[in-house]
Amino acid sequence: MKNKHKVLLAAVAAIALLNSALAWSQQTALVGATIIDGNGGEPIKDGVIVIEGKKIVSVGPSSKVSVPADAKKIDVKGEYIIPGMMDANVHLVPWPSWGWIEFLARYENNFDGIIEEGAQIALKNGLTTVFDSMGPLKPLMEVRDKINSGEVEGSRMFVAGDIVGFRAVFTTPEAMKSATKAFQERMNNAFESMGGPDLAWLTPEQLSVRMTKYVEQGVDFVKYGATGDGAPVNSSTGEADVLRFTPEQQKAIVDAVHAKGLIVQTHQTSAPALKVVVEAGNDMAQHCAITGPSRITDDTIKLMLKRHFYCGTQWEVLTPAQEEMVKEGKFPGNDDDNGKPGMNYNIENAVRLIKAGVPELVSTDAGTIDPDVKKEYESRGRPVRASIGEAEVQDMIAMRQRGMTNMMILQASTKNIAAAYHKLNMIGTLEPGKMADLVVLTADPLVNIENVRKIAMVMKEGQIVDRDALPRHPILTSPEAMNPGAFRMK
Amino acid sequence: MKNKHKVLLAAVAAIALLNSALAWSQQTALVGATIIDGNGGEPIKDGVIVIEGKKIVSVGPSSKVSVPADAKKIDVKGEYIIPGMMDANVHLVPWPSWGWIEFLARYENNFDGIIEEGAQIALKNGLTTVFDSMGPLKPLMEVRDKINSGEVEGSRMFVAGDIVGFRAVFTTPEAMKSATKAFQERMNNAFESMGGPDLAWLTPEQLSVRMTKYVEQGVDFVKYGATGDGAPVNSSTGEADVLRFTPEQQKAIVDAVHAKGLIVQTHQTSAPALKVVVEAGNDMAQHCAITGPSRITDDTIKLMLKRHFYCGTQWEVLTPAQEEMVKEGKFPGNDDDNGKPGMNYNIENAVRLIKAGVPELVSTDAGTIDPDVKKEYESRGRPVRASIGEAEVQDMIAMRQRGMTNMMILQASTKNIAAAYHKLNMIGTLEPGKMADLVVLTADPLVNIENVRKIAMVMKEGQIVDRDALPRHPILTSPEAMNPGAFRMK
Amino acid sequence: MKNKHKVLLAAVAAIALLNSALAWSQQTALVGATIIDGNGGEPIKDGVIVIEGKKIVSVGPSSKVSVPADAKKIDVKGEYIIPGMMDANVHLVPWPSWGWIEFLARYENNFDGIIEEGAQIALKNGLTTVFDSMGPLKPLMEVRDKINSGEVEGSRMFVAGDIVGFRAVFTTPEAMKSATKAFQERMNNAFESMGGPDLAWLTPEQLSVRMTKYVEQGVDFVKYGATGDGAPVNSSTGEADVLRFTPEQQKAIVDAVHAKGLIVQTHQTSAPALKVVVEAGNDMAQHCAITGPSRITDDTIKLMLKRHFYCGTQWEVLTPAQEEMVKEGKFPGNDDDNGKPGMNYNIENAVRLIKAGVPELVSTDAGTIDPDVKKEYESRGRPVRASIGEAEVQDMIAMRQRGMTNMMILQASTKNIAAAYHKLNMIGTLEPGKMADLVVLTADPLVNIENVRKIAMVMKEGQIVDRDALPRHPILTSPEAMNPGAFRMK
Amino acid sequence: MKNKHKVLLAAVAAIALLNSALAWSQQTALVGATIIDGNGGEPIKDGVIVIEGKKIVSVGPSSKVSVPADAKKIDVKGEYIIPGMMDANVHLVPWPSWGWIEFLARYENNFDGIIEEGAQIALKNGLTTVFDSMGPLKPLMEVRDKINSGEVEGSRMFVAGDIVGFRAVFTTPEAMKSATKAFQERMNNAFESMGGPDLAWLTPEQLSVRMTKYVEQGVDFVKYGATGDGAPVNSSTGEADVLRFTPEQQKAIVDAVHAKGLIVQTHQTSAPALKVVVEAGNDMAQHCAITGPSRITDDTIKLMLKRHFYCGTQWEVLTPAQEEMVKEGKFPGNDDDNGKPGMNYNIENAVRLIKAGVPELVSTDAGTIDPDVKKEYESRGRPVRASIGEAEVQDMIAMRQRGMTNMMILQASTKNIAAAYHKLNMIGTLEPGKMADLVVLTADPLVNIENVRKIAMVMKEGQIVDRDALPRHPILTSPEAMNPGAFRMK
Repeated sequence: MKNKHKVLLAAVAAIALLNSALAWSQQTALVGATIIDGNGGEPIKDGVIVIEGKKIVSVGPSSKVSVPADAKKIDVKGEYIIPGMMDANVHLVPWPSWGWIEFLARYENNFDGIIEEGAQIALKNGLTTVFDSMGPLKPLMEVRDKINSGEVEGSRMFVAGDIVGFRAVFTTPEAMKSATKAFQERMNNAFESMGGPDLAWLTPEQLSVRMTKYVEQGVDFVKYGATGDGAPVNSSTGEADVLRFTPEQQKAIVDAVHAKGLIVQTHQTSAPALKVVVEAGNDMAQHCAITGPSRITDDTIKLMLKRHFYCGTQWEVLTPAQEEMVKEGKFPGNDDDNGKPGMNYNIENAVRLIKAGVPELVSTDAGTIDPDVKKEYESRGRPVRASIGEAEVQDMIAMRQRGMTNMMILQASTKNIAAAYHKLNMIGTLEPGKMADLVVLTADPLVNIENVRKIAMVMKEGQIVDRDALPRHPILTSPEAMNPGAFRMK
Repeated sequence: MKNKHKVLLAAVAAIALLNSALAWSQQTALVGATIIDGNGGEPIKDGVIVIEGKKIVSVGPSSKVSVPADAKKIDVKGEYIIPGMMDANVHLVPWPSWGWIEFLARYENNFDGIIEEGAQIALKNGLTTVFDSMGPLKPLMEVRDKINSGEVEGSRMFVAGDIVGFRAVFTTPEAMKSATKAFQERMNNAFESMGGPDLAWLTPEQLSVRMTKYVEQGVDFVKYGATGDGAPVNSSTGEADVLRFTPEQQKAIVDAVHAKGLIVQTHQTSAPALKVVVEAGNDMAQHCAITGPSRITDDTIKLMLKRHFYCGTQWEVLTPAQEEMVKEGKFPGNDDDNGKPGMNYNIENAVRLIKAGVPELVSTDAGTIDPDVKKEYESRGRPVRASIGEAEVQDMIAMRQRGMTNMMILQASTKNIAAAYHKLNMIGTLEPGKMADLVVLTADPLVNIENVRKIAMVMKEGQIVDRDALPRHPILTSPEAMNPGAFRMK
Repeated sequence: MKNKHKVLLAAVAAIALLNSALAWSQQTALVGATIIDGNGGEPIKDGVIVIEGKKIVSVGPSSKVSVPADAKKIDVKGEYIIPGMMDANVHLVPWPSWGWIEFLARYENNFDGIIEEGAQIALKNGLTTVFDSMGPLKPLMEVRDKINSGEVEGSRMFVAGDIVGFRAVFTTPEAMKSATKAFQERMNNAFESMGGPDLAWLTPEQLSVRMTKYVEQGVDFVKYGATGDGAPVNSSTGEADVLRFTPEQQKAIVDAVHAKGLIVQTHQTSAPALKVVVEAGNDMAQHCAITGPSRITDDTIKLMLKRHFYCGTQWEVLTPAQEEMVKEGKFPGNDDDNGKPGMNYNIENAVRLIKAGVPELVSTDAGTIDPDVKKEYESRGRPVRASIGEAEVQDMIAMRQRGMTNMMILQASTKNIAAAYHKLNMIGTLEPGKMADLVVLTADPLVNIENVRKIAMVMKEGQIVDRDALPRHPILTSPEAMNPGAFRMK
Repeated sequence: MKNKHKVLLAAVAAIALLNSALAWSQQTALVGATIIDGNGGEPIKDGVIVIEGKKIVSVGPSSKVSVPADAKKIDVKGEYIIPGMMDANVHLVPWPSWGWIEFLARYENNFDGIIEEGAQIALKNGLTTVFDSMGPLKPLMEVRDKINSGEVEGSRMFVAGDIVGFRAVFTTPEAMKSATKAFQERMNNAFESMGGPDLAWLTPEQLSVRMTKYVEQGVDFVKYGATGDGAPVNSSTGEADVLRFTPEQQKAIVDAVHAKGLIVQTHQTSAPALKVVVEAGNDMAQHCAITGPSRITDDTIKLMLKRHFYCGTQWEVLTPAQEEMVKEGKFPGNDDDNGKPGMNYNIENAVRLIKAGVPELVSTDAGTIDPDVKKEYESRGRPVRASIGEAEVQDMIAMRQRGMTNMMILQASTKNIAAAYHKLNMIGTLEPGKMADLVVLTADPLVNIENVRKIAMVMKEGQIVDRDALPRHPILTSPEAMNPGAFRMK
């Protein structure tokens, strides 16, 4: 095994050379691996994938697919090839629960650097595409475009800007008292990109005009806040149990975005709100299952299926005791059936959505984590959130715990995400004509989905990724950042 | 004039005696006044109203209505008779902007006394009926029933309990830190009466069951919170611009209340929310015109007219400069037309509603004012809110400033309120068969609506009110309360 | 035993009759008990106490003291007689940690009633004298004077008013936002009585004038705040580790009070401050041992002894584990000797003070507890504070745990308190010429100090207390207050 | 004049060349100016200053001082030469009233750069020496040493580190909730340098040990917080009116610092505290006159004089109306003489200190200002604080308004500061053997002290400063920082 890896690494080094030196006409063939193409069928044993330029030319068993004589052959015998993985919901500028002000102030001049770092860590870990659903639009688009043009390496990015309707950054009285107004305004504007909380006051007609302008800034998809952010600010009405937009306003948003050819999705935190979201014509929703003390109704699930609605997850890994309960058909969180606040139906909802067949998407809120924020989690006795690259595996484990098979999970991180975002013609499966985005694993993910961590090679658009070199310019993950005592305060 | 009054007072004293001594079969006749019966037609000069027991027997000019020989005659020549006035929205347990904790703690054992005091001050000022749309249900119903049974004097009360969906009392972090949890829970429960914020999480079916139970507690009508309370708790989503219940949930509430034969109304603070409210089938809404930075749409107004929808006002008296602007067709508050938060369309909305013909109701939020709270208003340089009895006149002035005629205003405080609350068969106009609720004024309210302050006599259910004796047991208006330095700290 | 009690009760009933009927010239003799006279010597077996009017005429063994023939004899054979107990530090208007606003608002008009209730509960439990070191001066003096004149029953009261220099009531931003300014000002004034925080700005000369005026209001002793209240308001400087008055200012206060013939004591919370306090010439200090992360120095203790300085306790009952540690000579709280904040030397200090011979006084902060506040303690998982009458026993247990003998503890609650307050000529021991304040116990307090709970009879100024009748007009301890759900909200 | 300047600039350029090229043995002579040497005597007309290496060789009228033949002559005829100016109290890492978190986070890695920038702006404006009395010790010492070694240009720095006893940075609940604990701890440690709030709990002996260690870190002088920071945190005891250290503790600090040969000064905010400070043996105090509602006593002033005590100012520029009052012998702020909080004696104190002859020092709290913080001042309608270089002139204007002559003011910014800090042997006046620190002005400062703004040349240690080149590496004053919209968010 070890020797094998050495050989592979040597190959990688060689191909890296080729990557830059050879003309695109040269073909490459991955030979001998088990191919799980993302379509859900039986894996192809002893498979061959032939790649030319950025795209896949042919896929199949070696018995059927011939390797061109002049193709560069890469021996991946004993390995497993899956489509490039994706995350349907990341925040490349990380969204810390605590320490916002210091994070923003420290990196205000370097958001592009942080985004690039995140996109490279993602790629290193086999995520060839990520969908950023909330962040500062301008630097997100800049890095996206640089990656697309090949100027910069990184996971392929699709970006949304603000969660439309949200005040992005400064929301608590404490934070508002602790920062200058000039800074608050600059940060709020950077994250809201014209999509902030004033939209909730507009008529459908006004919203339609505004959303068209919003889209024309260059976003790839739109996400809006159907309710508040789930963190009740007081006991009267938090933000969790209220609609930020009326159904009519939501319809106006959805139609305006669809008219521009983009998909639209939502943030919401209650079952009544989720129903409104589905009815309004949205394509997908993030964290569908998280509806607090209100259970998703059967009607809503039926409508989801009818509308081919997709759901992001953001599921937490269960404790062994919780996992045991779920196996026995019981659901932690909802012993009491009176709809009393404080309980939640999150786990039951997830199990029901899976059983009903609503397609779930790996969807994590992940980004890179600021070391000070990481320590804050620890000091509060909260589980340290996984960074991008590992967060997706955690989400997959949570999927398995709620009843999804390894094949379902694999599709939840590949084909289904592409389908939800209307990108299936380009990515999501290993098929001729699609982008050559793929991951070579040293162990079978259908045996244990956590084997997606055992990466031998990542290829994006036909190029082998030099994983050891990523991220190129570490900021949040630099040795200095990880040990601020030594670095800071020169 | 003065002699006249003395005579009248003597008469009142005499009749007070009769009130208690005589059997109900005795008839009383008010003779010689100008009668404005509330129907909007030409006033009846030299009119006669004959009353037997609690009700009006006949109304008309002396030329047509004969006074029975054995009737007790009261000479009201030169006076003006109008129907008993009403307020479509009071809080007899006053709802202070500041000082909640101390107010509640001080009077927790005496809510019934305060309610009684308020109902008596109202009656003294010519309000024969008030609609309490938010307060502790239990003592409200107790006082209501005592007044109805004649055990206690006071304005006729109809009560709603909580604004359904509202956390009634303890909502700010400061207040929650400054009171014991036992007290908070007791107060929240007293004001919410099973109608608190957890309702927002329920399905339509669950809401239907809950609202039926809510009504069965003995309320006279229902009010729910379609949005938050207009006081944004932070800049992200306040509570003003969000829906507390989805349209479907609202429909469920409306239908459940209607099924029990009661009317239902709302609190809301944005134009999109007002539209939802009208569409959901509500009978009326409080402070329709107050929609912040969103203008009420023409469609909404059309639907209001079609549905015979009524609006409470809560309008502020304009400054002379503002009044001048309105006369010139300009609207303070909305110079800027971008829907930018911070502005408001409240005055323009009011003018448009009036012009369109949506019936407006005198509706004030009034109650009695705690002296410490009064001082707090003064210390903050805020206009001291008028107490019940005067607050209604302030509202009438605000109506006149926005374009209503004196006759419209008079109906807004009598017939229209009765109609909105489905009580027109009993009260609201001076007509045979209706309750003998009326006010005798010494000056013509159609010349100047503020003449409603010039009260010579108030009659409720055929009984002359001993105005000088009210309130019987002053609490908030007692000399001691008004001068706490002398009284408190024995 | 039971029969014995019945007999005693019958005797009590009989004497109660006598109490009111007989002339003062009549003598009473308590015959046959073991007398512990408070002077620390061997108890007198088979003792006799003869009382005439309010005072003791003679005390001694029956062999030496003859009972006058016409004296009313009370047989207390087998019982134990101790001097009336005292508490050197109570707050008859209780000082809640939480719920101040509601407590004050609820009882603002009834402080005298609450003080009376507290003084009666104290008396019922054998406390014939209490020293109130912080509370609203006016009602405290009123009740004090009524008790002294015999108009009202209750423990003899000596009162101080404010802890001079303290803002008495409204100190936290939350509370200040949650109450009206009128109320805050009224309450602050009531509790500060001209002795509030502005005194810290005065020159020694100005302070001298002000303190003279303060004393002339009619206080019995003075307490001032040498430091803040021990509750750090922030991490920068709390109030615990700072001097509220400079040494020179403290000297001015002490001298001004002494010039008026009163004793003066302090509140302080650090060892450096305690040193300043002793040096300034104070007579005593409350909670000397509580000095947080600073250890009392030997020099300070020496000076205390030299100056005949007294210490109040406010000691907490130790857990069994802590008690075990102390027995082994270890001190919970100060394992680390670096003076690092967060630790405290409270227990070690107490043990050292006792060993050195600094006289300690039972001193509790006790009052009656508002039921809502009691629940708040429970809901926060904090030990419910004992009410007056029991709090003193808790303090005695804490004394025993830190090394005091039962005799020392008995004197700490009788003779030493009288001495500290310069009242030894009147109370504190059982001697001819002193007030006949005494408690008859059914078990020996020198065997177990907790036997002070086993009270057979309390006598104050020669009158037997009708303990069952106290408190006469319960407020905080009324059934209604204890069960507010049933009582409040009529 | 203009031509003159051009010539001067040419000379400067030439001398800059010389500065780097020539050996130190070369002498330089400033010829022809009026010299105000700082000793308070008559200015020297047509003066000559001869400099060799870093020091002054001779000073006097051209009639008495001969210019060596080979000396480089600089013609400054018509100009005025004063000693290099100083500021007795700066914060080179600026201490913002608002926006701390973002400021610290943004520049945490660059404190040295900001300190360097501040020291260079100071030098550019004629401040050849500054005394930093509060800031992060480590980078302050690093920049100080680099400037001293000639590695970096800048004003000569003497540094103190923390205001001993202060929690340096994170003190408000809002800020503590808005930053991660890791960051708070790092920043608090950086600014406290072992001199934080825990010192208040130590015994004199412990303090002595700690202060010795503190000094041994390499500070040049010590400042401690005798009281809190003047910003009352609540109405009970703020921090303004209390002593952070007892007199005995203060004595221990003073003695420990003196034993190490350094001077020691204080921060305090009340008159009683100022008295303690003087008595404790301090050498000087910052903002002596600022004592809130307590007036400095005559005794304190007498003791100051006896002890040769120095005072920093931090005085505000008066409005014309206030200035007029002062001229008439009235003092804004203290109409009321009752010592009532809310008033202050600051202006009267200043006038009395000046009249009594207590030497005052230009002392400003100045640093460079973060542009966001500057906007915050503007948005709050507060006067924008002057940056270092201009702040000193503002302080001088304030001195003039309170009665100081121009000569007194000049000495307050030169000789007196050197004397107070025990540096008079090196700097402070223009005398042979002292450092050649001087400023050439184009207008007479004894006519108008604001002429210190009219700088023709600054020389430090014999080197002409290239003022146009400073600051070398602007950070807070960079174009990018001043226009963050364009710069930040690449």
